[in-house]
Amino acid sequence: VPDPASAAPRGEFALIARLAAALGPPGAAVRQGIGDDCALLHPDLVWSLDLLVEDVHFRRSTTTPEDLGWKALAVNLSDLAACAAAPVAALAGVTLGPAVDGDEVERLYAGLRACADAYGCPVVGGDLSRGPALALAVTVLGRAGRPLRRDGAQPGDGLYVTGELGGSEAGRLVLEGLAPAPPEAAALAARHRRPTPRLAEAAALAGVASAALDVSDGVASDARQLAAASGVALVVDLDALPLQAGVSAVAAARGLHPSVLAGSGGEDYELLVALDDGRAATAGVALTRIGRVEAGPPSVRFTGVAADAELRGFDHLAAAP
Amino acid sequence: VPDPASAAPRGEFALIARLAAALGPPGAAVRQGIGDDCALLHPDLVWSLDLLVEDVHFRRSTTTPEDLGWKALAVNLSDLAACAAAPVAALAGVTLGPAVDGDEVERLYAGLRACADAYGCPVVGGDLSRGPALALAVTVLGRAGRPLRRDGAQPGDGLYVTGELGGSEAGRLVLEGLAPAPPEAAALAARHRRPTPRLAEAAALAGVASAALDVSDGVASDARQLAAASGVALVVDLDALPLQAGVSAVAAARGLHPSVLAGSGGEDYELLVALDDGRAATAGVALTRIGRVEAGPPSVRFTGVAADAELRGFDHLAAAP
Repeated sequence: VPDPASAAPRGEFALIARLAAALGPPGAAVRQGIGDDCALLHPDLVWSLDLLVEDVHFRRSTTTPEDLGWKALAVNLSDLAACAAAPVAALAGVTLGPAVDGDEVERLYAGLRACADAYGCPVVGGDLSRGPALALAVTVLGRAGRPLRRDGAQPGDGLYVTGELGGSEAGRLVLEGLAPAPPEAAALAARHRRPTPRLAEAAALAGVASAALDVSDGVASDARQLAAASGVALVVDLDALPLQAGVSAVAAARGLHPSVLAGSGGEDYELLVALDDGRAATAGVALTRIGRVEAGPPSVRFTGVAADAELRGFDHLAAAP
Repeated sequence: VPDPASAAPRGEFALIARLAAALGPPGAAVRQGIGDDCALLHPDLVWSLDLLVEDVHFRRSTTTPEDLGWKALAVNLSDLAACAAAPVAALAGVTLGPAVDGDEVERLYAGLRACADAYGCPVVGGDLSRGPALALAVTVLGRAGRPLRRDGAQPGDGLYVTGELGGSEAGRLVLEGLAPAPPEAAALAARHRRPTPRLAEAAALAGVASAALDVSDGVASDARQLAAASGVALVVDLDALPLQAGVSAVAAARGLHPSVLAGSGGEDYELLVALDDGRAATAGVALTRIGRVEAGPPSVRFTGVAADAELRGFDHLAAAP
């Protein structure tokens, strides 16, 4: 259950651990249960569920119904990517708020369909209900011959990310009127509204990377998940974070170092990967090296010019649960 | 998606049909998509998702957190039973309303666990979010060598139900103070709060029954689903509906014929089965014959002493979508 990389308030890790314990052992049909991005079932099924709730994960004022449908499926596909699984199919449970009309929900399903077509993951069923607010519960099934997990990072590995960071959070700030729009505003907004699940990159990394997860809460927080699951110490060079164009301008408008925005902003849905440095060059995936894996108790240490007083918030985020 | 046997207002069948069309064809991985209780995937996977939303599907004033956790999984397992599938595992997405505390949610997970243990369906993951109200999105996977479907009813078959009807609706009326408590009130309340998915009965009917679905909206409404999916005319003898003890007293207090309550009340989660009469006696399942399948355009006709003016509401329910 309770994937910590959710909208559960950060103070609730203890609750989540209690709930996971309450659910008990996963049983013989299951290779790995609670804690990863996906549950792994015998023989090769990978399974995930993500909730998107109005005014918690999205605002109807800053997203279109089509974008919301896309995003609800895309964030699930990103979970499959984190496990190096290929999509099979999805179910969509949609709760309609009182203010949602038939046209709006039809546009939402069109967005689901667009994402389903883009990534070969048909939506084959689900449920529909009335409720107090718009909410989506999407679940996806995938297949993975060599699933990636969070718990395999090895001391000596390099720490890498796909793509660029900070774009989704910068896009959110601009969309909500919390920062002026830079020239790259449209691309930032698109990054926030229509994330790209890194399925192709994950397929190339299957059997090559030591561990992976998808960056849903921000590298600073997600690195902590990787460190805890693998039982390793991570060093993250904040100067090395690959910034999406426009992130620096938005960060400056908010009085933030751009690496703080890029490292703490969530929803980029890039992959954070632990990988032998010798294999990184030949993996066939564009990766940026942002740090390394060391032996030691689970922890994350930040380096770089941004790693000064301004970044103490990271240390809080990176504290053990 | 949109299983019509959901809390979607009855007037929204047209919307549901539009949404199903928007999602497009299910693709090669899928044997049957939208419309049945479950999606059927190659080779033998059966998959369902059900939403339970506060004040739509349940009230916190009349259900305990443990019962709610049980019910959220049990209604999904009932979908598997309708397809004659054996449970593999479940994921639970839980949205916590602002008034839900840690103790309450832990009790909810204990109820999920109790149902999981009772039916051998471990909860292996999911998601957790804050939101405007308590809501559960549970999804289950099962395996079915010979899946039952809604579309196989044959003219000449008998129409049968497992167990007894009306108990859940009578229990709800008593719990909500809408009818005085009869001596059987505790059993009626238990029926409403902790439905029994008919997994064992379904396993015995696999390869024997022509068609099946689970009675979630009431026999009158669900018979319409069966008739529409199979392209047949159904005749339902209201005098033959098996009534749970206490239903007659609650119906009388509400000024209803007991068969009206039993036929229109939902959430009994019995199986409605079309079955060759010769096979019914040897299926090894306790069944009550409540009608028959005839050739003809999809329709449901009611007979019996209760099938008078009082029952015109059924005809509305049983009209073609």
